[in-house]
Amino acid sequence: MPTAGILVIGNEILSGKVVDSNSPYLCRELRGLGVDVERVLVIPDEIDVIASEVRVMSDRYDYVLTSGGVGPTHDDLTMDGIAAAFGVKLEHSESISQRIERAQGKPANESQLKMAKIPEGSKLIDSGDLWFPLVVLENVHIFPGIPELLRKKFESVRHRLQGVPFLLKKVFVRRRESDIAGDLNDLLLEYPELVLGSYPKVGVEEFRVQLTLESRDAGYLQRALDSLLARIPPDAIHKIE
Amino acid sequence: MPTAGILVIGNEILSGKVVDSNSPYLCRELRGLGVDVERVLVIPDEIDVIASEVRVMSDRYDYVLTSGGVGPTHDDLTMDGIAAAFGVKLEHSESISQRIERAQGKPANESQLKMAKIPEGSKLIDSGDLWFPLVVLENVHIFPGIPELLRKKFESVRHRLQGVPFLLKKVFVRRRESDIAGDLNDLLLEYPELVLGSYPKVGVEEFRVQLTLESRDAGYLQRALDSLLARIPPDAIHKIE
Repeated sequence: MPTAGILVIGNEILSGKVVDSNSPYLCRELRGLGVDVERVLVIPDEIDVIASEVRVMSDRYDYVLTSGGVGPTHDDLTMDGIAAAFGVKLEHSESISQRIERAQGKPANESQLKMAKIPEGSKLIDSGDLWFPLVVLENVHIFPGIPELLRKKFESVRHRLQGVPFLLKKVFVRRRESDIAGDLNDLLLEYPELVLGSYPKVGVEEFRVQLTLESRDAGYLQRALDSLLARIPPDAIHKIE
Repeated sequence: MPTAGILVIGNEILSGKVVDSNSPYLCRELRGLGVDVERVLVIPDEIDVIASEVRVMSDRYDYVLTSGGVGPTHDDLTMDGIAAAFGVKLEHSESISQRIERAQGKPANESQLKMAKIPEGSKLIDSGDLWFPLVVLENVHIFPGIPELLRKKFESVRHRLQGVPFLLKKVFVRRRESDIAGDLNDLLLEYPELVLGSYPKVGVEEFRVQLTLESRDAGYLQRALDSLLARIPPDAIHKIE
């Protein structure tokens, strides 16, 4: 199955000023596509840090998705870092510069021209109605940090990131996690390929633990669910989704 | 200044089923204390991954804070991973076991006893009204994934994590980021120690960019703010906080 690493670039996340909503979105979407996200890493806006982490992720995972650091200001260093990761230079993209001019009816200013500098060898993928294309270098997909723009751009590459999706069953249980932990361990001995999650909830009346059962094989998932339900007393089950 | 790495452990985050609210909370609190968060890393529930990432973070940063993977179930492998990171074994903590018994009026069951197994050499720090103490090994602070519990436990160690806090000014600007990027670059040439953030907002009427100016030195911060306000036309300023 294809794997992915998500690299969130931005001092504003590390300093707690902005909550990153991009990596939860990407995790959810990639999971839906059947791509396994192996790491999410948040790093500061520093060229050498970006370069070394991009290098590692690009080698390890099928896809790398970066978020942030592509605007026109002093702290937007993602393009520099990614270029350094692959040992290439930044070059002016006449294609981007023309799009900017077309979109606003006048030539790009100095700051906008900075946004038209991209790593040598990058591919441009047009994104719906956005004037700025998605920039892709090797397996690294370079997304903006602004959530609305990231989501639009993700739509333009969604079809290129296809794995085999997981199927999911949720079971809401009225027992404490420590009361059913033994049953869960036994279930996993019988179904070792099952992806089983157990999430205690505090402050909810109806149930105490949410279980998630997942598999890419519908028959295997159903057999594991049946096995779980045979282990837990019926009155301990709040609902199944 | 003290530095920190935050390690979020949990398949449920990577698969997009649960949104991590712990790392944003910790980033914000640590920033308030003056501790510099250098990385946030989300990893799966796998012992060898936990061990190697804890090892790296423990060497690099003054403090490591982990979140998740400390419950009684099959996928709770944080203690195993941290023990492996330091080459020690898990051992039964009679102190934790007694607390469990005291809290519930009966001996711990098998699953609860699993939660009483902690790395050799760990210190226990009591956390207000919680029956389970915070476990600390070397510079690694082991927090639970449940946000309510994590926050209570953080309060019990807050006083041990003290740096020199940053002072913050926010300036809300009615111009596009690309229109003021040159001014910001000039400001940083004059005040190279200033921590300057620039965050465009989409879908807001009153302003287009939020600037954050930060320094640990109040005088330096005020001089940088004055310099910024001298560069941008007064009618472009929405407000200053």
